[in-house]
Order: sequence, then C-alpha cells, then structure tokens
Amino acid sequence: MSVQIATMQRVTVIGLGLMGGSLAMALRRAGVAAHIVGCGRRALLDRALEMGAIDSGFDDASDAVADSDFVFLCTPVETSIALLRQIAPRLKTGALVSDVGSTKEAFAEASREIFGDRAAECILPGHPLAGRELSGLENASAELFAGCIWVLTPLGEGSASAVATTAQRKMQEALEAIGARVSFMTPQEHDRTLAYTSHLPQMLSTALALTLERAFAANDPALQVHAGGLRSMLRLAASEPGMWEQIAASNRENIAVALESLEAEVRKLRESLGSAEFRKRFEEAREFAKFVKG
Amino acid sequence: MSVQIATMQRVTVIGLGLMGGSLAMALRRAGVAAHIVGCGRRALLDRALEMGAIDSGFDDASDAVADSDFVFLCTPVETSIALLRQIAPRLKTGALVSDVGSTKEAFAEASREIFGDRAAECILPGHPLAGRELSGLENASAELFAGCIWVLTPLGEGSASAVATTAQRKMQEALEAIGARVSFMTPQEHDRTLAYTSHLPQMLSTALALTLERAFAANDPALQVHAGGLRSMLRLAASEPGMWEQIAASNRENIAVALESLEAEVRKLRESLGSAEFRKRFEEAREFAKFVKG
Repeated sequence: MSVQIATMQRVTVIGLGLMGGSLAMALRRAGVAAHIVGCGRRALLDRALEMGAIDSGFDDASDAVADSDFVFLCTPVETSIALLRQIAPRLKTGALVSDVGSTKEAFAEASREIFGDRAAECILPGHPLAGRELSGLENASAELFAGCIWVLTPLGEGSASAVATTAQRKMQEALEAIGARVSFMTPQEHDRTLAYTSHLPQMLSTALALTLERAFAANDPALQVHAGGLRSMLRLAASEPGMWEQIAASNRENIAVALESLEAEVRKLRESLGSAEFRKRFEEAREFAKFVKG
Repeated sequence: MSVQIATMQRVTVIGLGLMGGSLAMALRRAGVAAHIVGCGRRALLDRALEMGAIDSGFDDASDAVADSDFVFLCTPVETSIALLRQIAPRLKTGALVSDVGSTKEAFAEASREIFGDRAAECILPGHPLAGRELSGLENASAELFAGCIWVLTPLGEGSASAVATTAQRKMQEALEAIGARVSFMTPQEHDRTLAYTSHLPQMLSTALALTLERAFAANDPALQVHAGGLRSMLRLAASEPGMWEQIAASNRENIAVALESLEAEVRKLRESLGSAEFRKRFEEAREFAKFVKG
C-alpha cells in the first residue's frame, strides 16, 4: 500500500467554476492537499462539498484565505485583481498566491503594486492552457489539466525560468502531480505569445462569424453548404463573452498588433488571388501549418 | 438474394485522384454502373484496375469517353474546362457530362461556350462537399461521399431546382445511391455561397499561418503554448496549394468581396477591444456560431 504525501497543508481555491472546481478535484485526487477550502456563492459551495471537491467553504474571500498556505484565484483577470487587493491584508505569513488568468501582465503589475518588494515571493501567477468551451462547476473534472501546459510567470527580476522559494517549488510539484506540464515565461512574453497563439485565433473566429452573419440570414439553408472546414473555423466563436471581454481589455495592445498584422496578410492574399504570388504565400502557410501540427 | 439494378450502362471517370478514385469505387460498390472506364496516367490506371475500381482504362480522355453514357470530370476546375473542350467532339449522342469542381461559374460558362444551346442538356455541373485534407488514389474510399452534400447546378434557365432529363435524373439517383445528399443551386449562387462558407475560411486559416510565421521562428517553443484552438484554426492552412490556386483564380471576385468584408469585421473588432461594443459583437458572433453548429 502506497501513501500519498500531502505537499500542501491547507489550500484555498477562490472561484468554483470550471477552472477552480477542476483544480480542487484534481488536487484532491492527486492527494497533494491535506485540506481544501472553497470560496464561491453558497449554492456552489454546497455542491462542491457534496462532490467532495472541497473540505470547507466560505462565501467571503478574506475569510476563505485566513489560515491557508496556498491560494488559487480561479476567476477572470479583473476579478482576480480585485480579489487580490481584498485578501492581501488577511493572508497568512508565508502564504503563496497564484491565479489562472488568461493574461498575466495586468495581474503581475497589480501584484507588484499591492505587495511591493514581497510580490516575487508571495505571488506566482499562472495560466493553465486547458479547455474553455464548457464552463461551470457542472463541467469540472479532475482530468482537466492532464497533459496541459501550465505557464508560470515568476515576478522576480531574471527569474522567469524557475521557481524561487520552497513554497513555489511545492506549488509547481502539485501542478505536476495533477498532470500539468509546467512552463516558465515572463508575464510580458506570455501576453505577447498568447496574443498570437490564443487571442488572435479567437478574434478571427469571431470575425468570421460576423462576416457570415452580414452575408446570410441566420436560417439560410445555403449556410449548410460547406465542407466541414467552416465548422472548425467557427468553433471558437462560441466561447464565453465575459472572459474574452476581460482578456481583450487586459491584453489590448498585443492583440491589436497581432490583428493589424493579420489584416495585412489577409489584404495581401486578397490582392494576389489567383496569381503566382498567391501560390507562393499559400505554400509558405502550408509548410508552417504542417510544422505547428507536428 | 437481391439484385442491384445498374442505372448507368457505361460511365467514364476522368482523373483518378481522391475524388475520381472514390467516385469509381462508390459507384462500383453501389452497383449503379455496369462498366466503369477510368482515365488517368498509366500507373494510376493499373492501380485502379488492380483495386477493382474500374473495368477498363485509357490515358487519353477522348478515347476514354468514346462510348460512355455518363462522364465525370474529376480534375481541378481549369483542367476540367480544358478536358471538356477536348472531349466534346468525341462524346456519344445523349451522353451526359458532370464535374466535381470547387467553383461552378467558370465551368458553366465554358459549357455554354462549347455546347451552345445543348449545354443545359449535355452538361450537369456538380460539386461534392467532401473531405479535402488528403489527396490521391491511395486515400480514395467508397465511403467518401456518404452523407456529404453534392451540389448540382443545372444550366437551363430557371431550372436550378431540379434535373431536366432522364439521363440527369439517373445521374442524381446514382449520386444518392452512393450516399450523397443532392442539393440544387445556380452556378452563381454556388460560387457566391462557397466564397463565404469554404473559400473564406481557407484564406483565413492561410492568413493566420502567415501572421504567426512573421511573428515567430518556426521552431520557437512559444508556439506550443496554446490551448488547442490554434490547431483547429490552422488545420485548413495545410490544404493542397494547386487546387486552391485554381479556386482562387476561378472565383476571385466573390472571394475578394468576402475577404474585404472580413477585413472590415477584424478592423472593427480591433478598434473596439475591451469596450462595450466589443462585448456586443462577441455575443452576436456567438449566437451565430451556435446556430451554424446546430
């Protein structure tokens, strides 16, 4: 009989949606947390307690973090920043806070503003690149992070490639224990990269849906005349608006640069339709797409 | 024991790639063709004969159509137009020609030019909306058209909603026998619709690949930091350049209009990043995407 060593004594998960709910369930199943505190609306707490995802629950974030060694903010970026400000005075000495926000610079900046010199030690921002088409505790799963990349963006100068403290190492190990592949970046690198690899594809899918809507009535049977590629290109457009509003606001400059670059490529393709230049571009794109596909 | 009735006596399939190969195999399996003639390069004919997809083969298109009642041109648009011109003098009286090209106006125009008043009777252009990521006889399958939409674009005035002759009805029945769902459009409607539902998504995926290539070195590990949406958006970019060069050339005006409209939507999204207007657009796109998804 093997015994799992609990590497985290008391962990608080704030926000019990898809991300928070899945994180609590995954930590529980991996046996890396002795006690898991949930924080959310009363009905969610009841449900999470019933599911065995958490051991105790609070609807107030300050109460929820009071005695915890590790805190995960599992809410959209702007909410997490407001919560960070709220819980700061109530955190236990030595407690480590992380988040799961889709952009990192705004959260990093707020961390430095609130915690000053202690930010690099007390805050280890993170971003799990896990599925986003579903939402809510009802879709949470202990499997959500299995195999996913979990970016950590340490705040210390020149420390973007490794964790700095014992608590941070423990957090990294817990994430690895739930199946995540931890990867390090600076908050700036993260936001610039994701503007291209995540936010740009989302905006494109949304823009494609809007373009089609202008061209067809929604119930036009002609819309069914497609070869399947349309569906895969429209899949992201069905994503949750609330989260994307916050991503767009908190990574505006990077996304705008990526979109401008995309607009230029679309225009050049359009101007070259059917020419040798078109063929050249098409082949170049094909090579690149095959590479990313692996 | 049930006996399949062969509704087509002698069918010629010109071009033995994914489409032509699959069509021959599907017609054979459905038992709706008594004799199937293939036309292609000698090595392909040998392979198709071995596979039992065809009964006889010719490397010259004029020879291949000589005694056939039905002819399918299974080559890219421009090639099919050239072949139509070549085989016209050798077609049997009453023979019916179709094609599988991705655009229809250019082929329809060439048909009228070559066949004059007889075009509406002798030519029934078509377009099966079947998978395109693979190519070649080695990937052909009798299953390729099962459940797929097969657009027919009759050439007679005001006859865009049904076939006009007995031979045309037989052809429609044969397509239904291999599992296709036949749908009628005018060549103009087809090309305008597909510019949005097929060609636009393709151009977008290609433009996305080019944008990413400008922003990252192809082997940049940062490109692996994405949530899966990127892969689905880049899938089409790996399509075959030769076919798309011909589609772009033969449907340039419609594609250009669709791309301009897309460019405007991308620009408006970019200018509204993080504003209430952004949220509104995002929600609108979401409703539409959910509808198309069904």
